[in-house]
Amino acid sequence: MKIHDISMTISEDMPVYKNLDKKKPKFINVDNYENASHYETNLEINLHTGTHVDFPLHMIENGSTSDSERLSNYITQASVYDLTHLNECIKKEDIDRLGIKKGDFVLFKTKNSFDDAFNFEFVYVEKIAAKYLSELGVIGVGIDTLGIERAQKNHETHKYLLEKDIVILEGIRLKDIKPGNYQLIALPIKIKSVEASFCRAVLIES
Amino acid sequence: MKIHDISMTISEDMPVYKNLDKKKPKFINVDNYENASHYETNLEINLHTGTHVDFPLHMIENGSTSDSERLSNYITQASVYDLTHLNECIKKEDIDRLGIKKGDFVLFKTKNSFDDAFNFEFVYVEKIAAKYLSELGVIGVGIDTLGIERAQKNHETHKYLLEKDIVILEGIRLKDIKPGNYQLIALPIKIKSVEASFCRAVLIES
Repeated sequence: MKIHDISMTISEDMPVYKNLDKKKPKFINVDNYENASHYETNLEINLHTGTHVDFPLHMIENGSTSDSERLSNYITQASVYDLTHLNECIKKEDIDRLGIKKGDFVLFKTKNSFDDAFNFEFVYVEKIAAKYLSELGVIGVGIDTLGIERAQKNHETHKYLLEKDIVILEGIRLKDIKPGNYQLIALPIKIKSVEASFCRAVLIES
Repeated sequence: MKIHDISMTISEDMPVYKNLDKKKPKFINVDNYENASHYETNLEINLHTGTHVDFPLHMIENGSTSDSERLSNYITQASVYDLTHLNECIKKEDIDRLGIKKGDFVLFKTKNSFDDAFNFEFVYVEKIAAKYLSELGVIGVGIDTLGIERAQKNHETHKYLLEKDIVILEGIRLKDIKPGNYQLIALPIKIKSVEASFCRAVLIES
């Protein structure tokens, strides 16, 4: 069993969405070996930091939350597709060539997998492509940027997927991953009634 | 494949260590459908909240951190042992009866698995028992309380385990789990250079 870690590392200087200061995590050391006999840290963090899943409430008013998640969606077969040739976005015709099957969890490796900093021109999933993915019956879509869409009105890419309870997994790191089939483990931390949660995402090669 | 969730739910009113206010997570809603077209939450949280692993730095000065973790320790065979008959602590002789093997990840189901609130008199692992577990060569020890030791001087239970890089998994929920063998998945969120991290812990029954 080979475990490939496809998670971002959470740190104060990590890339965050649009480099906004308010989205950067803060680490507060509350106990250390000068004032105590142990070491403890507090974290101030936005739920969309690093590798995470979005639940419907993130983009749909009164949408469902973490409370409705199905764990089997996060321990599942997944396929990594090479889309590193695309410069702007992932369109329906790009997806059509991939041979995606119903029940697949698709992970899109884009040119952003090679970025170390947040890229404002990141490759996103175009809304008609998102609608097509939902019609194909995928159970999840993962991408190695911090957003699955960029400046689209009404967040339609998110909505087409979240309306069908398709998992959106953002902020994975596929630079070192070859296209192919893997077992994905990307279980979100169990937080009550929220719109997103952190994951440690790995791919298992057997 | 049956997935048993053995994680605590993180919420503002969850049990925290010794019920200390400063250890309770805070949820801050930063965007919602009254001020924006999406919903977003920030979290203020201690790294030892809910189901989590401790790294050596937590109890050993200059000890190693999350940066040295081995992922194979968190996707592994594990055994659940019924110790619900114990009232005070887990001693060497209690462990001696269990037939623990080298390389096992042991999960101790105690009477605390039935508690909904923090129990100040929680069943802990006594220091000589911890030393014995390290000699047996276990790779991890999980327990369904928020601490693996209670009021012991010098945190020796932690130290005997952490000195040998044995995983300490605290705050699991074994109430509904039958003793026996499972696959454990308890991957910690990838946070840079810290002394603990949150896990979504599950047991797989095949």
